[in-house]
Amino acid sequence: MGGDHGPPVVIPAVLRAIATLPENVRFLLHGDEPTLAAALAKHPDAARRMEIRHSERVIAMDEKPAQALRRGKGTSMWNAVEAIREGQAHAAVSAGNTGALMAISKLILRMAADLERPALVASMPTPRGVTTFLDVGANVDCDAERLVEFAIMGEAFHRAAHGVPKPTVALLNVGSEEMKGHEEVREAHRILREGKIDLDYRGFVEGDDITHGVIDVIVTDGFTGNVALKSMEGAARFMLDELRQALGSGQLAKLGYLLARPALRTFRDRLSPPPAAPLLGLNGIVLKCHGGATELDFAMSIQVAVDLARSDFTAEIERNMRRLPDALAEPAPEPVEVVAPVASADGDAAQGVQE
Amino acid sequence: MGGDHGPPVVIPAVLRAIATLPENVRFLLHGDEPTLAAALAKHPDAARRMEIRHSERVIAMDEKPAQALRRGKGTSMWNAVEAIREGQAHAAVSAGNTGALMAISKLILRMAADLERPALVASMPTPRGVTTFLDVGANVDCDAERLVEFAIMGEAFHRAAHGVPKPTVALLNVGSEEMKGHEEVREAHRILREGKIDLDYRGFVEGDDITHGVIDVIVTDGFTGNVALKSMEGAARFMLDELRQALGSGQLAKLGYLLARPALRTFRDRLSPPPAAPLLGLNGIVLKCHGGATELDFAMSIQVAVDLARSDFTAEIERNMRRLPDALAEPAPEPVEVVAPVASADGDAAQGVQE
Repeated sequence: MGGDHGPPVVIPAVLRAIATLPENVRFLLHGDEPTLAAALAKHPDAARRMEIRHSERVIAMDEKPAQALRRGKGTSMWNAVEAIREGQAHAAVSAGNTGALMAISKLILRMAADLERPALVASMPTPRGVTTFLDVGANVDCDAERLVEFAIMGEAFHRAAHGVPKPTVALLNVGSEEMKGHEEVREAHRILREGKIDLDYRGFVEGDDITHGVIDVIVTDGFTGNVALKSMEGAARFMLDELRQALGSGQLAKLGYLLARPALRTFRDRLSPPPAAPLLGLNGIVLKCHGGATELDFAMSIQVAVDLARSDFTAEIERNMRRLPDALAEPAPEPVEVVAPVASADGDAAQGVQE
Repeated sequence: MGGDHGPPVVIPAVLRAIATLPENVRFLLHGDEPTLAAALAKHPDAARRMEIRHSERVIAMDEKPAQALRRGKGTSMWNAVEAIREGQAHAAVSAGNTGALMAISKLILRMAADLERPALVASMPTPRGVTTFLDVGANVDCDAERLVEFAIMGEAFHRAAHGVPKPTVALLNVGSEEMKGHEEVREAHRILREGKIDLDYRGFVEGDDITHGVIDVIVTDGFTGNVALKSMEGAARFMLDELRQALGSGQLAKLGYLLARPALRTFRDRLSPPPAAPLLGLNGIVLKCHGGATELDFAMSIQVAVDLARSDFTAEIERNMRRLPDALAEPAPEPVEVVAPVASADGDAAQGVQE
């Protein structure tokens, strides 16, 4: 029932997805029974693989999470998440209210890791495919352990969603040298570098690597990740607006624009990020599809949910999480290099900003 | 002598700048006397407003800051900064090694505020002009006081460089509501909102506001600022590459590209950020021009240096800095609102990520 469009988008999306999914993938549709039944009436074959679960109420798109928790029981969103806890579903996909979905999922499924709230992945387009970037959500204060948890969850997600056998992982920082960054990121670097956690860890990367495509999974705290994601979205919007203006000025440029328009459309589509983001760290697979999702977007989100549910995703995360306490233990002190502290603190961290 | 090109760019840039600057603006040129004298030989009129200060040595572009501090004395960069301390110059402009310039400037001029190292400004292009964004440098750990200092310095810079009488100021955060973000940014918000510091403070903004043009000065810590700036640079590069590819695929698109090329060039130039960044927080005006600066870039940097030197810039910063201790004092406790803490912590901070 969720998203800006509800069943008129979700039902065609399910029908589109079901056409390519194996026979044993089945659907529970949570929502208003008469509406859903009517939408399925013309598709009896597909309908055999679906079961409608009636719910009287829905969570509104503008409802506050606190309110959604108080009065959410019995809504379509609540029932969809509860079906996971009850073992009736392997994954849930919703285009509904993000804050409500997070709050309800956390309440019903509980966090697997010791997170404040689910970590959110952004799938960034790059020249070589997609980079998994997290946390872009709301885990604002992240210590080293939290960053390592994001690395574990993001790596397992990237493998399950993109079929990369051994994704590469890096920490986002302001430079690539060991002494760079704040204490939390340096400590997370130490833990990951030691190799007690089974990841292909590659060290520090910088902001421009997020869309560069050299690393599969890039990890940061929810504050930096959210700012970086929105900064890039803003920059992309600004550039497209400028481009439109530049190509609308003068007759020749306008003609050029008309001729190049199909190519420009390809360009725009290439920049649209994948529509589905998993809420990582929950005891169960919940995907958030953006509210304005099209039929194709929602169908792709269903495909990602199926890929995650069929993978070893959850077990992999658990295996690596069990290695975490040992990896967190203090290491033997390393030999201290002799450096000129004032100078290197002064300048090294500043290098690379403009050069 | 600095930058990728040295005197062949710097001397023409000075000649270009001097043509439009008032008679009483004079130049000290630090570097190799024979080289500089030869370059000025054909311009006797302009040369009358310049004085060559010979230096035997230069700081290399790849020199480590620690090394630059040890052996920097007597280099052209060192002498240029020292001329400020000795009252012979009002401002210095360099296209040389950033880390070395920061270290040498800090050693010779000392920090005005209690900063680790100078704050760096990025001047972001927006549909409405330029937004001053700081710190994009190397002040990684920033408490509330530091963020307020950045606001004071950035605001004074924006007025001096862009002639805006009362620039608007905002703090970068992951949402616009008061409870959003980490402790440091919420505390800085409290201080700025109280109004004891003379700024037109507008509250929190998000990452996409950096290129939106609604706020003149956007303040964040050096870690987040550096990541955001580089993320946007990476996204812009990715988009231009994609655009080039999209317009190179197919004969009609190629023809379209040729016709639209002048407009696309305008677009690219519009995205180039202004070339000069001041090192804020020093007892003196030092501008860093990027290493690959063209003649026009360097001439524009000189103009910004002159604008800063002729403004009330330093005194304004000092006035507001003196108000800081009072503004930092703990306020009377505010009435506590009754909220459902689990729920609002859960969901509110997550809202807006995808909706």
